Amino acid sequence: MPDLAAIVADIAAEMADAPDRGTVAQYIPPLAAVDPKRFGIAIVTDDGREYVAGDGDMGFSIQSISKVFALTLALGAVGDQLWQRVGVEPSGTPFNSIVQLESEHGIPRNPFINAGAIVVTDILLGRGEPREAIGEMLRFVRTLAGDDAIYIDDAVARAELETGHRNIALAHYMRGFGNLNREVARVLGVYFHHCALTMSCRQLARAGRYLMDGGRNPETGHNVVSARRARRINALMLTCGHYDGSGEFAFRVGLPGKSGVGGGILAVAPGIASIAVWSPGLNERGNSQLGTLALERLVHRTGWSIFDPRVF
Amino acid sequence: MPDLAAIVADIAAEMADAPDRGTVAQYIPPLAAVDPKRFGIAIVTDDGREYVAGDGDMGFSIQSISKVFALTLALGAVGDQLWQRVGVEPSGTPFNSIVQLESEHGIPRNPFINAGAIVVTDILLGRGEPREAIGEMLRFVRTLAGDDAIYIDDAVARAELETGHRNIALAHYMRGFGNLNREVARVLGVYFHHCALTMSCRQLARAGRYLMDGGRNPETGHNVVSARRARRINALMLTCGHYDGSGEFAFRVGLPGKSGVGGGILAVAPGIASIAVWSPGLNERGNSQLGTLALERLVHRTGWSIFDPRVF
Amino acid sequence: MPDLAAIVADIAAEMADAPDRGTVAQYIPPLAAVDPKRFGIAIVTDDGREYVAGDGDMGFSIQSISKVFALTLALGAVGDQLWQRVGVEPSGTPFNSIVQLESEHGIPRNPFINAGAIVVTDILLGRGEPREAIGEMLRFVRTLAGDDAIYIDDAVARAELETGHRNIALAHYMRGFGNLNREVARVLGVYFHHCALTMSCRQLARAGRYLMDGGRNPETGHNVVSARRARRINALMLTCGHYDGSGEFAFRVGLPGKSGVGGGILAVAPGIASIAVWSPGLNERGNSQLGTLALERLVHRTGWSIFDPRVF
Amino acid sequence: MPDLAAIVADIAAEMADAPDRGTVAQYIPPLAAVDPKRFGIAIVTDDGREYVAGDGDMGFSIQSISKVFALTLALGAVGDQLWQRVGVEPSGTPFNSIVQLESEHGIPRNPFINAGAIVVTDILLGRGEPREAIGEMLRFVRTLAGDDAIYIDDAVARAELETGHRNIALAHYMRGFGNLNREVARVLGVYFHHCALTMSCRQLARAGRYLMDGGRNPETGHNVVSARRARRINALMLTCGHYDGSGEFAFRVGLPGKSGVGGGILAVAPGIASIAVWSPGLNERGNSQLGTLALERLVHRTGWSIFDPRVF
Repeated sequence: MPDLAAIVADIAAEMADAPDRGTVAQYIPPLAAVDPKRFGIAIVTDDGREYVAGDGDMGFSIQSISKVFALTLALGAVGDQLWQRVGVEPSGTPFNSIVQLESEHGIPRNPFINAGAIVVTDILLGRGEPREAIGEMLRFVRTLAGDDAIYIDDAVARAELETGHRNIALAHYMRGFGNLNREVARVLGVYFHHCALTMSCRQLARAGRYLMDGGRNPETGHNVVSARRARRINALMLTCGHYDGSGEFAFRVGLPGKSGVGGGILAVAPGIASIAVWSPGLNERGNSQLGTLALERLVHRTGWSIFDPRVF
Repeated sequence: MPDLAAIVADIAAEMADAPDRGTVAQYIPPLAAVDPKRFGIAIVTDDGREYVAGDGDMGFSIQSISKVFALTLALGAVGDQLWQRVGVEPSGTPFNSIVQLESEHGIPRNPFINAGAIVVTDILLGRGEPREAIGEMLRFVRTLAGDDAIYIDDAVARAELETGHRNIALAHYMRGFGNLNREVARVLGVYFHHCALTMSCRQLARAGRYLMDGGRNPETGHNVVSARRARRINALMLTCGHYDGSGEFAFRVGLPGKSGVGGGILAVAPGIASIAVWSPGLNERGNSQLGTLALERLVHRTGWSIFDPRVF
Repeated sequence: MPDLAAIVADIAAEMADAPDRGTVAQYIPPLAAVDPKRFGIAIVTDDGREYVAGDGDMGFSIQSISKVFALTLALGAVGDQLWQRVGVEPSGTPFNSIVQLESEHGIPRNPFINAGAIVVTDILLGRGEPREAIGEMLRFVRTLAGDDAIYIDDAVARAELETGHRNIALAHYMRGFGNLNREVARVLGVYFHHCALTMSCRQLARAGRYLMDGGRNPETGHNVVSARRARRINALMLTCGHYDGSGEFAFRVGLPGKSGVGGGILAVAPGIASIAVWSPGLNERGNSQLGTLALERLVHRTGWSIFDPRVF
Repeated sequence: MPDLAAIVADIAAEMADAPDRGTVAQYIPPLAAVDPKRFGIAIVTDDGREYVAGDGDMGFSIQSISKVFALTLALGAVGDQLWQRVGVEPSGTPFNSIVQLESEHGIPRNPFINAGAIVVTDILLGRGEPREAIGEMLRFVRTLAGDDAIYIDDAVARAELETGHRNIALAHYMRGFGNLNREVARVLGVYFHHCALTMSCRQLARAGRYLMDGGRNPETGHNVVSARRARRINALMLTCGHYDGSGEFAFRVGLPGKSGVGGGILAVAPGIASIAVWSPGLNERGNSQLGTLALERLVHRTGWSIFDPRVF
């Protein structure tokens, strides 16, 4: 096993000085206000050790990374019949594109683009109340991370609701095709709240442990999902986790990963480590500029790419 | 290590009786004439052992699987500047789609859709003659497989040329955008010939060993490509190797793979095995129906998915 | 001048027996309940005579035909600056398509597809209340037709609101691009109400007289719009009035026309006549099957096509 | 009747000084070499008088305007069965777009985009030789114009052939769908030759007389096509004659018209006049900048818009 403490320290130091940091999301004030100089990294290994550097203990808005946890929870609720309403293919289009829904009759390409995550949230909502579904998501993520300090930032959720016309459009469009069962406002209420989860890299890396460990939460020893389901979620993160930049992420980093517009990325080295990075500046496809670079360097120094023979 | 001899024998027996075998490609007579009852499988493991069952020693037209070898050879010729002319993203569209070329100015999404492989072939052709480029591809694949009996089926290549209007259109379209340097007829002459390679599952699995072994041909000990390049080719196979069915293949099988319209699939378990399957019936996205099913069962029995923790 | 009384009687008789009547719109009960055997026709000529046959005095839901009156009113309110928010090109796509809005940044192709008419309605709403805007539209159409019996069918408007997810999606989508100033619910409230105008063919033909007469209402002698504006509205009806069936309507009928999903069509022979037909069965592009056929026969017998030399 | 001699002289004078002249086509040297200061206009009225001003007797490359004559000739050859292979709808896309062919199975939207005109040319070629088809087109246009001095510029045709990759792509693409019967090289040989017709505005306006006169050549008294067919060609010119700028041309000018990349436009006022204008600078949609402006002014001064009541 490589010297991870040294590696994360080195990477944090390199990122502190990186000149090209991308552009911080501007569409809502709480995100626009984040300092572009921030960079955090946290690794939790299979044996439970944690390696954290930079701003790895500072909370940030996980945004679309919550789609992974929402999918996991929804699969638990309805099982594989979820796939009748959401596809498993990369979309080749931006995160908020509506184009494919028209020719594909309201079935989103995958659960990690906005349209797909909205359908997943509709499933989460089920017959219950938004408040309950939001509470369930929060409890689920707290349990995964083993940390009850994780919270939802209501200011972020409210700001999203006020400016979320494209997501409202996506939701109504799918409801027009019969692929949304609950009222749009209720579904999006839940959606914007789980996207507004505030977590640190350390919390996020902990929450992702079940994906590293065949569906099992190594802290509790309980199965969060079956090994088969964990594997499939990893596969979806690899092919669809970075929108129309998923291919490039697989090409450069080679790990299942899911990015959020807050600048976080959760990445998984199956059987080895759960990793979270955060830097708020985004590249042109909406994925963290330095987060991606940091993961590329991490994989380069550890040999953790899933496309490489294991060297340890 | 699981009992691979038993596993391949079991899978071959199961596939012999499978009722839903897909549809054999009809667009050229040499492919249309292939018996839909055929099924072959071959595995070459990291330690050099070979496990072959069913029709695993019968030759078939590898078709688009040759795009993997063409890409490898072209990267050797021009290096990473190749990526200025071809992208690394899944397309979300069928293998022969021309739509994205219009808005993306003649740059194909990836090297494994037809448009991308035609650009790769243009690079292979370089300043030489078609005959030389075809010869180089044949020698390369023979060396990879360690088998000089591998040949190109001229009847297949001729039939493709006669009916290849969509590929001709793709090539001219890209040439109109300045992304094809050589004459269309010459480029497609080479393209159709390397797609007309006839190989058995055993030969194909052998030829894929360098992708299992970090770029090294384990038979000769020589590096075919660098470890980094092998990793990236595997990543591209995972995200783009099955056209608009790539996501589903990653979801169900979880291995880098490349399919061909002849019904073959080359799959790679990095550090473990190089695998080839063949059954001529295709599913609705043009990938082998039983080949995919066989790989799904193989991975289920071996735990070889790259999205799982390693269990051995 | 041809014998119009005989012609409309003949056409009504022919349409009564026509076997292929298209399909009545099913998406809201008030439209689905309409008898497919209905057919009406009314012609108002430049000299003020009226020729009515079949069900030409029976009220029906004019639906998208109201887009012509809404555009006329909005042009009166804001003038040609309207064209900064709506284009003048045929879309080549169905009436409720959202695809082009994505690449064209929320600017609808023309005012006669749903997206365009929603922007026009946003202009109509201006800074006022929905109730006022609806009242203004109703008064405007009553004045045009010289008939205060014209009314808005609230049951139709309510049914549209309940099922109008695609229109809500269009509106939010454009608001996301900054091309809708007022709240979506208010804009669509007005939109669905003006689409719910109930008029007979006679009333509709009368309301269209200003388009026949260079912008002048021949009954009052007042200019509704300038001659230039009337000409341009006619041009838009010709190129965009039948969605992705506009070319075929121009080809077969050769008059500016606007269809509605209720089965009505308003057509204009400039300088000669204003014409309305109605039959609720629609063809595959959502335009009245028999209405189109009736207009084709009318033009054949009168020589009124704008693409013909005038023969009278 | 307005004082046309004065009007054309005025317009020519105005256009001589117009500052914003658009951009001359650069893709082949013979077009790129044309002087952007040129402007010509010619009107032939129903009574046979001719009004010519500016460079109205100077030859230019008519390019896509030839699509009108090719369509007329092909309809004469195979009649309305032509419409099984070509649509009658505006495309909403640029002249050389290939996108719609994919989803619409190789059937071009209309005969005035490149793909449609290539199918029309395939029909013209029939079972004969390219040389014969080219000769037939030349004789046809000479007869229409009553002028045997009209010729095809071989240098233009050759230059098109050398750079025509997108047209070659369109042709092969349609052949892949079975919508091209003859060899691509032969069809495009004819296509590029009829696009290379050199004509003056006077010759072009004369050639268009049959479209003004219900299909009849007023010089010979013979019917070139039936009145119904002339009307339909006019309708297609109105809805599709300026590619994705057709709506704007109808909106501003209000006459059936067909533009060419050489800067010419043929326009028809049915029953009144056949009009040709020429100025080589193009607007962003590939239509003559000053040609359009000149026609707009002509219609403003004459009241000839087909969307206006006739005032004479």
